[in-house]
Amino acid sequence: MTLSSDRPRIRLKPKANARGLRHGFPWVYANDIVTDRRTRKIAAGDLAVLEDDKRAPIALVAVNPASKIMCRVLDRDTKAQLDAEWFETRLRHALQLRERLFDAPYYRLIHAEADGFPGVIIDRFGDACVIQPNAAWAEAHLDVLTDALVKVTGVGTVLKNASGRTRGLEGLDDLSLTLRGVAPEAPLPVPMNGATYMADLTGGQKTGLFYDQRPNHAFAAKLIHPGADVLDVFSHVGGFGLAMLAGGAAQALSVDGSAAALELAMKGAEASGFAKRFQTRQGDAFDVLTKLGEDGTRFDVVICDPPAFAPSKQALDAGLRAYERIARLAAHLVKPGGYLGLCSCSHAADLGRFRDASSRGIGRAGRQAQLIHTGFAGPDHPQLPQLAESGYLKAVFYRL
Amino acid sequence: MTLSSDRPRIRLKPKANARGLRHGFPWVYANDIVTDRRTRKIAAGDLAVLEDDKRAPIALVAVNPASKIMCRVLDRDTKAQLDAEWFETRLRHALQLRERLFDAPYYRLIHAEADGFPGVIIDRFGDACVIQPNAAWAEAHLDVLTDALVKVTGVGTVLKNASGRTRGLEGLDDLSLTLRGVAPEAPLPVPMNGATYMADLTGGQKTGLFYDQRPNHAFAAKLIHPGADVLDVFSHVGGFGLAMLAGGAAQALSVDGSAAALELAMKGAEASGFAKRFQTRQGDAFDVLTKLGEDGTRFDVVICDPPAFAPSKQALDAGLRAYERIARLAAHLVKPGGYLGLCSCSHAADLGRFRDASSRGIGRAGRQAQLIHTGFAGPDHPQLPQLAESGYLKAVFYRL
Repeated sequence: MTLSSDRPRIRLKPKANARGLRHGFPWVYANDIVTDRRTRKIAAGDLAVLEDDKRAPIALVAVNPASKIMCRVLDRDTKAQLDAEWFETRLRHALQLRERLFDAPYYRLIHAEADGFPGVIIDRFGDACVIQPNAAWAEAHLDVLTDALVKVTGVGTVLKNASGRTRGLEGLDDLSLTLRGVAPEAPLPVPMNGATYMADLTGGQKTGLFYDQRPNHAFAAKLIHPGADVLDVFSHVGGFGLAMLAGGAAQALSVDGSAAALELAMKGAEASGFAKRFQTRQGDAFDVLTKLGEDGTRFDVVICDPPAFAPSKQALDAGLRAYERIARLAAHLVKPGGYLGLCSCSHAADLGRFRDASSRGIGRAGRQAQLIHTGFAGPDHPQLPQLAESGYLKAVFYRL
Repeated sequence: MTLSSDRPRIRLKPKANARGLRHGFPWVYANDIVTDRRTRKIAAGDLAVLEDDKRAPIALVAVNPASKIMCRVLDRDTKAQLDAEWFETRLRHALQLRERLFDAPYYRLIHAEADGFPGVIIDRFGDACVIQPNAAWAEAHLDVLTDALVKVTGVGTVLKNASGRTRGLEGLDDLSLTLRGVAPEAPLPVPMNGATYMADLTGGQKTGLFYDQRPNHAFAAKLIHPGADVLDVFSHVGGFGLAMLAGGAAQALSVDGSAAALELAMKGAEASGFAKRFQTRQGDAFDVLTKLGEDGTRFDVVICDPPAFAPSKQALDAGLRAYERIARLAAHLVKPGGYLGLCSCSHAADLGRFRDASSRGIGRAGRQAQLIHTGFAGPDHPQLPQLAESGYLKAVFYRL
């Protein structure tokens, strides 16, 4: 362990927002830092003391010279040691929030900066945790983090998922590993909103299970009346469809491009006892929506939860057009008096823009609508107030 | 009944947004209308056919020459008759949504434009409904509306509440009346979120019961652990406090400036079986928050639901300062790891501005925070997508 007095110093340029950093902003960009012979020697994942342009200390930071976000604030105490106690204290604080809000140990336990672990995601699936150490400092401290995680939660299995796209930006490998215990060979059952989902912990992001839509799944389930026919487009492993079946829907059709995701969705339906009421269709969502429209098939509730159509500012206009198109095609399939839920996980499309694109699409389908609910990611996905604009997940529910 | 062919015509100026009106925007401002000898003769509450500048019909509108919003769109069908069937169809459509979402008949039944009744609010309290006809057309059609309401809902009592501030802008009186049945002499019990609230239907807005915060009350109740001490500032008739007691809080303190509201809150606590765990304090909220801070009193959960500090654009800056001050004073009273819920019902302060002011206040109190939930008014307060920016109610929940 490095003595805190030996830690390298990193100095902000005068133009950098030292005040914002003192008030909780968690990142320092490379071009706000005075780079000299010493800073260039700092290795990815090393700790340093961040100073303002007058050399007054601001915070303990993790450094990655290879990343645009060159420093991530770890602690206000520049002398803090990242030992077992440091990790355990933060993990316990995070666990307390989740145990307050959820009846069973299935949740996102660590949501990066907002939980005091910059760039780190930890999802819990009962007795197993999956860590995504998407920043160099976390990779460097993975062993002490894993030990602390086992101690605080008592889980038997800890996996490392290295498929996160941001790992490339940090110069990290994409090697997923079993860190503790034994990786489950079969998908694990995960109870949520009265349904059972199947989570494939070793299959990577493409078939992973995400907890962020949980409250929006629950709202969709409340819209169900007995006998309702529902459609879940971009269903992934069955998120909205299974929740609506648990809410009493007579039939659910889940549409996705991934056969692997639909297979997990079907396994979830079987585990939930919904297999007879559940159908899947593999295909391009735009094609399937168009085809269902032409066939005259109509549903009581339609949900569309597409991938990020506007992942960046450059993609915003095209993304909003895609959201509008989805809304138009989907609105067409909703029975009079039925419901339409539209989701966006695009950082670049804020709530107002996404809602306007969706409303425009519904109008273009010739339908009038009431906006009845707006939802975000659940409380196991807290945000740092200083980064609140980046709340990526939005769900808007209309009655047509 | 006027024959539709006899209806006066109202013509838009070329600069007016006819396209927006065709796509669902519900209002026409006086300065977008060609005023001539005939339009000046139209009486407040009369119906007319709105035409674009080329004399093509757009919609059936209700006219009020005394109001800045001179026309309100009633129907896309310019020949529609506002008869019993017209009112019953719209009321039934609105009722269906509420019956889907709520187990008991306590909700906002009609939320103005979004439910197809421009300027009209109807709240239901079991066997009683309270109508706020805040537009001249509704006042003129009050009898047929009331009959339809009784027929569709089966309620025995219908009251007219004329205390709405917007009635003045429409040139309407402030005379509240019993329209059907007998006005209840005592406050009515209203079940919500496991607590019983007392609604004084004849006491006017100042002690009325509002349904809009219901989902936010429910979220606050989920934050409770056994033994929790909670504080509810600007408590009105006990909204958050009683819900948190129903959620298991050991003690709740409700603070409000109105003795009448606190009396109803205490009656609600008695009806809920919470009287021993419930305290009230009458006083100025800023003073009480300051005093509690000085006394060193700390709570597990603190909620502040103040009146609109920024009711207009002119009041925005002062309003945001007031929200920041509330956040600072309240954050001070939250135990470490506790929760703070802050609400705004200001139209002028959008979610981003209100959240930033709240986060700033928490920072000024020297506290670090996670933003864990953002809530709006419940689904019995639908919005017209074209007016969605006006979503007035926001609630942000932090963990400190």
